[in-house]
Parts: sequence; C-alpha cells; structure tokens
Amino acid sequence: MAARESQVVLGLDPDLSALWPGSGAADSRGAEGEALPPAELAGRAMLEHCRALIDATAEACVAVKPQLARFEVLGAVGRSVLGAVVEHARAAGLMVIADGKRGDIDVTAQAYAASLLGGLDTSYGHIDGLGADLVTVNPLMGLDALEPFVAAAREIGSGVLVLVRTSNPGAVDVEDLELSGGGAVWERIAELVDELGRPGRDDGGLSDVGAVVGATAPGHLARARELMPSAPMLLPGVGAQGGRVQELAPAFLPGRAGGLVSASRSISEAHRLTGGEPAAAARAEAERMRETAWELSAQVR
Amino acid sequence: MAARESQVVLGLDPDLSALWPGSGAADSRGAEGEALPPAELAGRAMLEHCRALIDATAEACVAVKPQLARFEVLGAVGRSVLGAVVEHARAAGLMVIADGKRGDIDVTAQAYAASLLGGLDTSYGHIDGLGADLVTVNPLMGLDALEPFVAAAREIGSGVLVLVRTSNPGAVDVEDLELSGGGAVWERIAELVDELGRPGRDDGGLSDVGAVVGATAPGHLARARELMPSAPMLLPGVGAQGGRVQELAPAFLPGRAGGLVSASRSISEAHRLTGGEPAAAARAEAERMRETAWELSAQVR
Repeated sequence: MAARESQVVLGLDPDLSALWPGSGAADSRGAEGEALPPAELAGRAMLEHCRALIDATAEACVAVKPQLARFEVLGAVGRSVLGAVVEHARAAGLMVIADGKRGDIDVTAQAYAASLLGGLDTSYGHIDGLGADLVTVNPLMGLDALEPFVAAAREIGSGVLVLVRTSNPGAVDVEDLELSGGGAVWERIAELVDELGRPGRDDGGLSDVGAVVGATAPGHLARARELMPSAPMLLPGVGAQGGRVQELAPAFLPGRAGGLVSASRSISEAHRLTGGEPAAAARAEAERMRETAWELSAQVR
Repeated sequence: MAARESQVVLGLDPDLSALWPGSGAADSRGAEGEALPPAELAGRAMLEHCRALIDATAEACVAVKPQLARFEVLGAVGRSVLGAVVEHARAAGLMVIADGKRGDIDVTAQAYAASLLGGLDTSYGHIDGLGADLVTVNPLMGLDALEPFVAAAREIGSGVLVLVRTSNPGAVDVEDLELSGGGAVWERIAELVDELGRPGRDDGGLSDVGAVVGATAPGHLARARELMPSAPMLLPGVGAQGGRVQELAPAFLPGRAGGLVSASRSISEAHRLTGGEPAAAARAEAERMRETAWELSAQVR
C-alpha cells in the first residue's frame, strides 16, 4: 500500500450482460474448430473482461476482490476462470481478496479455507488452493465458523475479513438488532473480531483479523473503529452504493493501511457516466479514488 | 417422502482421508496413459465414494445433502465431481439439497442462486445450474440476502432452507444473543423465515421457505416450530453430533414432511462402530434412522 500510495480495492464482479465491448469476441470455437458450450464462451469473455479491467486500473489499486458468485455461475469453467484472473492480478502486483462470505464450522470451514487459501495435502499429492491473501467470512455461526479460517490464514501469512456491519439496506434486519445487554448484534461481532486478532505479519500495528464495514453508514465506522482499534477494514459501498470516500476517516486511525476502499461498478462502469473508452474511464475513476483516499488518510491521526 | 416412508437426508461430506476402501484405486492414469494431477485423482476417488454411499443407502433416504466445501477444495475438478454426484443422486430418485450456506445480496445472491438452482440465460446461451431442489442460505445480511434466493427457487418450484439455529457449540456466540425486545437473534430470524414463506408446490401445508434447526438442542425445536408453524425443517446434528431422532417430534407437527433428518458421518462411517463392510453398515444405519423417524412422525399430532 505504501509503495503504490493506494488503498483501492478493485471489485471484480463481472456481469455477463455488461462486459466491456470486445470481451471474448475473438474466438467462439475451440482448438479443433468445435463449437464451444455456453459456459466456455462466457468464461472466455469474462476472463478477457477481468484482465482488461485489471490492466487498466492496476497501477491505482492494491488488490482485486473477485466476487466468487459471479464465477461460480459458470460451474467448473468458472473456477478455472477465477484461477486465471487471480494469476493475472498477482502478475500485476495486486493482492487478492476472495469475496465468498463463507460461513461454516469445523472440517467444513477447514475445507473452505483450504480451497481459497493454501490448498490441502492429501494422499494423492498437494491440491492447490486459490492462494488468496484475504478471505471474507460470515460470523453468524459463531467463533466455530471463524477460528478454522483464522488458523488456516495465520499458517500462511494471510488474513481474514469478517462481515461486521454490511453496506446493504437489509443490514438492519439482523446485524442492527439491539441486544438486551446493550449495543447491536454487529457490535458484538466486532468484539469477537477484536478478540480473535493477533498482530499481522508486517508489524504495522494492524491485526490479522479484519472486518467488512459498509461505507454507506459512516456513523457505524467510528464506532466500529472504537471496538476494533487494530483491525484492517474492508470498506465496500463506495461509489455505486452511495458511500463517499471522504467519510472513511475513522478507518485510517491505526494507520494508512487501516482501510481498504472497495469499488466495483463505479470503476468498471465509469464510462457509462463519463463517456469515452471503458479502460480509460476506469483508470481515471480508480486514480481519482486512490488520490482522494490517500490524501484523506494523511490527514487522519 | 410418502412413497419412501422416509425423512432421512444423506449428508455427503466426503473426507479425502476417510473415503471408503477401494474408492478411486482402479485408474490412476488418464485415457492416454498420462499421470493425473492430484485434484483429478482425488476427484475420481471422491466420486466413487459418493456413488457407492448413495447406492448403499438410497432406498432408505429421500435426499442427499452435498457439503459444497468438500467439493470446492478440488477446484474446477470438484465442481465437475459435484455435478456427477448430483446426477447420480437424481438417478437414484433422491432430492438434492445444496449445502453451501451462501449469504450475499442483490445480483450476487442472484448469481449464487443461478449457480445452485436453475442456471442463467445469457447471450452465449443457457448456462446450466446445479439443479438443486433446496439450498441452504445464511441470513446474517438480512432480507436482502434471502429474497433473491427465495425468488429464484420459487420460479422453478425449488425451496430455500435458512440457517435459523445451528447445531454447533458456537451458535451461542451470535444466534443465541438476547435481544432488547425479548427473544434471541435466532428467534427473530425464525420470524423472518415465517414471513417470507408461501405455500409450497405440493399443497401439503408446508411453506416453500424452510429452516435449518440443529437437532442437538431439542429445546429450541419446539420454540422454532411455534415461530415457523409451516416451515420444513432440516435437522442436522443427528448421530455423530449427539442429536437423537427421538427428540425431533416438534418438527413433524405440520405433517410428516415437516422434518428432514440429516446425517453424514453416522451413516458413512457406521462401519467404524459396527464393523463389517462400509456399504452394509451404512445401509443398516440409514434404514434404522428411517424407521425410527418415520414411526416417530406417525405419533405426532
């Protein structure tokens, strides 16, 4: 983040009905001239779109955040495309945040963690994982659902981002419920996140267990920072969902790496607002976010 | 369920270190004699294990419940294996409950639903989904995270099972928190489930939105039934996790189809307790569960 002077996370949320023009148009047949099945055609287009988006914006970003659902919709092909996208992002010097919001316990959580992080040693040989640097995790099932992810991530120097207070309107339905002992459900989750964390690998004062805190409700952000003084925060909802970079200051209290500013459509679809080529518009929007967030984070503390 | 006189759900939770003997031993090389990568070898073994387990127990069961994490750990291969397992289960006359506990909103939830249920129409052609009859869903993010799944399921006559009160010890950390207005978090989630449901396709008095309620805490079951009088309930935790079939009576109040009794290890690893061939031991245990639950459900009402 220091080298790139950026906190911007490029959300990869490829919508098959809104890929950049030209994605996948080149080859609709396989190596032997055969017609390709729809999932394969769609996968090629999705991969080209994601690569172009990464190429256009990588300089302004520190990470990509692939939304796993968008890849899973293509079945087995989707997992291969996801792997290729991750590889492309790494080659561009970006971290990878696997946004799958998995939440399960025990051996199931271990299997999810192996799948997204470092893989699994088996009697058949080592099976690779996706190799993500960070994964998003759902805490509804309690510490059982968090600890296996945290342990697996810690083992390979990765990290976990726990859903604490999300940016969607429905967050009021469960996350915001008031508890009899005071505070909301999400504040109790924030306390669990704070208890779980240990100092991260870079000795920058940040924990290795972070939080997802929506950028659409800035009032929550200051409180979340109080409850989790050293947690890195992934801040979705900037841009298309209405959050403003300027309201993110509390995230940067423990340092400039305290907040990861995530945006998907406001970058990939910037050309719909500003006109021009998608790549140029995306680059400009990512750079604008980078500059705004970086300057803001200098003023905090 | 009536035809098979069964409420038993076979959990497919294949552990690569505990597959049935003989699974995948036959072919360690591909069609052209090449050495296969570890994921491919493991995938073949996993598929053979799951097929043998289904063949052994299908007569006593109404559904399989593949634990998606176990397949995802094999990457793209895992998704292909999952598809083949689902096909095998359908050929054996079983319903399929995709246990992925996904929880996300809006277009992301739609993509997860398309992936697990009916697939997606695209400009590249129709991309098939997994074709599950039921999917498990995580409600932490609120109604936003449930409604897209419910809508997608309703469109094709499938259903949704919402995590309400899970069977793990960590359920106390978030699900059991007491609310200021009375009741626990999970009871509020139960109310949301009840509000979301509509009469299911078979006109048997059951809703098309069901609930996952752990069989390890029978006290919760009666209360859950009060709050969700017509929700089908998936009851995990019977057997290996300590829940007993006899304690499930409240699930069957709206009828015999009101409870789906799920077990994984207690069936697939029955031979470790009873000795003998894995298939015979699994068949006997599944049949024992079937009979116990079916008789119990006759005594309710």
